[in-house]
Amino acid sequence: ALPFVLIAGPCQIESAGHANDMASALVEICARLGVGLVYKSSFDKANRSSLGSQRGVGMAKGLEILAGVRERFGVPVLTDVHSAEQCAPTAEAVDVLQIPAFLCRQTDLLLAAGETGAAINVKKGQFLAPWDMTHVAAKIASTGNERIMLCERGASFGYNTLVSDMRSLPIMARTGYPVIYDATHSVQQPGGLGSSSGGQREFAPVLARAALAVGVAGVFMETHEDPDSAPSDGPNMIPLREMEATLQTLIRADRVTKPY
Amino acid sequence: ALPFVLIAGPCQIESAGHANDMASALVEICARLGVGLVYKSSFDKANRSSLGSQRGVGMAKGLEILAGVRERFGVPVLTDVHSAEQCAPTAEAVDVLQIPAFLCRQTDLLLAAGETGAAINVKKGQFLAPWDMTHVAAKIASTGNERIMLCERGASFGYNTLVSDMRSLPIMARTGYPVIYDATHSVQQPGGLGSSSGGQREFAPVLARAALAVGVAGVFMETHEDPDSAPSDGPNMIPLREMEATLQTLIRADRVTKPY
Amino acid sequence: ALPFVLIAGPCQIESAGHANDMASALVEICARLGVGLVYKSSFDKANRSSLGSQRGVGMAKGLEILAGVRERFGVPVLTDVHSAEQCAPTAEAVDVLQIPAFLCRQTDLLLAAGETGAAINVKKGQFLAPWDMTHVAAKIASTGNERIMLCERGASFGYNTLVSDMRSLPIMARTGYPVIYDATHSVQQPGGLGSSSGGQREFAPVLARAALAVGVAGVFMETHEDPDSAPSDGPNMIPLREMEATLQTLIRADRVTKPY
Amino acid sequence: ALPFVLIAGPCQIESAGHANDMASALVEICARLGVGLVYKSSFDKANRSSLGSQRGVGMAKGLEILAGVRERFGVPVLTDVHSAEQCAPTAEAVDVLQIPAFLCRQTDLLLAAGETGAAINVKKGQFLAPWDMTHVAAKIASTGNERIMLCERGASFGYNTLVSDMRSLPIMARTGYPVIYDATHSVQQPGGLGSSSGGQREFAPVLARAALAVGVAGVFMETHEDPDSAPSDGPNMIPLREMEATLQTLIRADRVTKPY
Repeated sequence: ALPFVLIAGPCQIESAGHANDMASALVEICARLGVGLVYKSSFDKANRSSLGSQRGVGMAKGLEILAGVRERFGVPVLTDVHSAEQCAPTAEAVDVLQIPAFLCRQTDLLLAAGETGAAINVKKGQFLAPWDMTHVAAKIASTGNERIMLCERGASFGYNTLVSDMRSLPIMARTGYPVIYDATHSVQQPGGLGSSSGGQREFAPVLARAALAVGVAGVFMETHEDPDSAPSDGPNMIPLREMEATLQTLIRADRVTKPY
Repeated sequence: ALPFVLIAGPCQIESAGHANDMASALVEICARLGVGLVYKSSFDKANRSSLGSQRGVGMAKGLEILAGVRERFGVPVLTDVHSAEQCAPTAEAVDVLQIPAFLCRQTDLLLAAGETGAAINVKKGQFLAPWDMTHVAAKIASTGNERIMLCERGASFGYNTLVSDMRSLPIMARTGYPVIYDATHSVQQPGGLGSSSGGQREFAPVLARAALAVGVAGVFMETHEDPDSAPSDGPNMIPLREMEATLQTLIRADRVTKPY
Repeated sequence: ALPFVLIAGPCQIESAGHANDMASALVEICARLGVGLVYKSSFDKANRSSLGSQRGVGMAKGLEILAGVRERFGVPVLTDVHSAEQCAPTAEAVDVLQIPAFLCRQTDLLLAAGETGAAINVKKGQFLAPWDMTHVAAKIASTGNERIMLCERGASFGYNTLVSDMRSLPIMARTGYPVIYDATHSVQQPGGLGSSSGGQREFAPVLARAALAVGVAGVFMETHEDPDSAPSDGPNMIPLREMEATLQTLIRADRVTKPY
Repeated sequence: ALPFVLIAGPCQIESAGHANDMASALVEICARLGVGLVYKSSFDKANRSSLGSQRGVGMAKGLEILAGVRERFGVPVLTDVHSAEQCAPTAEAVDVLQIPAFLCRQTDLLLAAGETGAAINVKKGQFLAPWDMTHVAAKIASTGNERIMLCERGASFGYNTLVSDMRSLPIMARTGYPVIYDATHSVQQPGGLGSSSGGQREFAPVLARAALAVGVAGVFMETHEDPDSAPSDGPNMIPLREMEATLQTLIRADRVTKPY
């Protein structure tokens, strides 16, 4: 088995400069540790809790910045899409299209994403059982595109709380598609701060260890050099300065099931 | 206080003939009982569990049929929209735009719907706490459109199961917007039949009684003359032939809190 | 069908004088409204959140006080038992033995309660599905005692929260035993105040209305003349001064399904 | 940090011969792998789903068998207690008293267990938040006995399902008491087989790996040479013949956080 892949980056694209700084730091850390990196960042936060929250730089500017990161650093790049129309242009700029959890049952979006031929990371809806992802994957696969990743990011557990059922990882793996564990969104507390979502950043590395010891192909972890000032997801992103030490422990957890 | 309003109709638009038959029957029953009616039907089922499930007649044909129902029977008509682009044309054909539960946090959709000036029924996401709907309503209200209804349709409760927390009705009512209880989707068992959703049709009238005794402005209940042959939501729609008796009980429940 | 029965009283027995005052007030209100009353109070709170909380007057003194209430006011009396040994002596002083929710699977307690021949009100555990109560009832019925009531008091819903699934009422009624809805414990927030349980007193009448409109044999509602000073369950008990107006609405809700 | 401890054995004491066979096999495996063993078995299953299920050999005979295992193999022995009266005699025969999850809030039981001075393993109730265990531990510690272990065994997640929230392990560890992960009861499906509990044996080692990678003091795992014929908990016990290979993987998971 191969080592796990890290999907990481700041939740939102803030500027070309910021993206280059973040990508540069992550590329360096991952090279040092021998961990594969996919750089992640969003051009639009399309479903913020409140209207007042920042939405991002927009698609045109965002894709330009991501294409720049890809070219400059030679890393694969991932971003999320929110409508069928966004899929084709986005697939020209990035390597992996991501389907947001709330949208994981929207047939037109899944088909349009599949038709680009790009790799696709589908987040499991907070309202879905892990076995229900079979049908989600089948919608994409119907386009002839089998480059599918299934991503756990927590299930609804009462109000304003998510729980990570670690059984979902082997259950989704039965599909044959690689499974990713999203450690930073799994510790969100949706709506937990009133007009925005709270988070329990301290548990992200804890749950990532658990997921790797269970066995996953990759870990998704948003990061920022100063999470408390980030325009979104600050409460659950992990500080960039903690990334290397965190990854060192995750590599040990990865080896529980992979004798590389 | 006014009596409750019934939002009812078959889950999908099947044909002009079928829509007219259903509307005719519902108009007659509601007139007999003095219950206000909003006719509901969908032109596209955009988030079916599986790709193989029927999606519907499409927007152009669907809106024509709904406009026909409105004209012929003089009843207000409701249908759901799935993208920002659909809002304006749909608002020309119908009176109420409905935002699906999975899409209740998609800012662009909420704004586009609001900007039409049409009344809007927003389903509460299965993943949201009732107090989180304040922010959803505020997105719509930011367009200057305050014709908003908030709709309970069950919250995620473990896997493949929804639960109706009746406290959500008074909690959402604190916004000042009318609250609707969706009795037939609340008894869905999402993914419960493997590749489609199951349902517990027998509990829809039971939960509708509960909601009315708690106090709501309206009840949403999908119906069909032969639910077991319907192209979608058969397991939870109530048979048309049971509608009148069901409504008679619901009127008694409505009077628990409304001395009309 | 008969009107609903009210099981009511202060959570804890505080003193003979207090019990007589409460019983006197409740007897008077219920007589005025034509509602049957069972007087409820506990001699021991055996499973408080914290050690520092008050446990009560003890079994000997408590049973003496309850027997006094029964004799003086001619009302049936209910109290809860926590071990097999307590059942026989308690059944001499009261009419109904109550099995606490946490203990609803303890076989020896259920059998000892059944063997007294007294009526038994079993609370459904917060961790049980409604259909699982069949087996609980069967344990009691194995003693030849069929005087069983099954009581909904909320199901675990995430942390520190209960939800009342109103479907549980008709599901438990399929056993043929009368079903009771416990409106004040269903709005508890277990552990919600740190070292004690919180509550949402304002929702108790709301949920009681819902349960009666669904259809139950009785409602359980703890009450106190000054809930905020009560030694236990203050946050969810309803004030005695609101009892009569609450019951008037509940009578309307009861008539939704019962044409008396 | 020390390696993890394994608490293992068959759910029920079946006979002296069976106990000796099981203990002998487990002692040998654990010696080979350098894992500490506490032998676990129950003399009474006091809260079976149904009356018809086997309850066990009883306290007198059970304690005699457990004392025999302790003497013959020199291993510490654990068993569960169900009433205050059972604590003192049980503490003479075994090293660790276990408090069942349903009973974890019963004050008298916790105090009586604490007063024996024996080590105590308290299962967290399926209805409790992890932070609520602080108060449970404080009840025991009030007796002067600080030999307390806190044990995760799953939280209620909808009906007939438990979920293991791995955050509960570090949350409970904040108390300073060792935390145990019960891998076989966490995969129970309470009531899942109608009149008895189902289980997902295949996920027990998976979740045990996750818990150890998060960091726990010990793992609890029931085992049997032929689980499908065992008188209780067959669906979730792991076969004895798989124990050694399972432990080898668990040792790797344990080293993720412990550099021994």
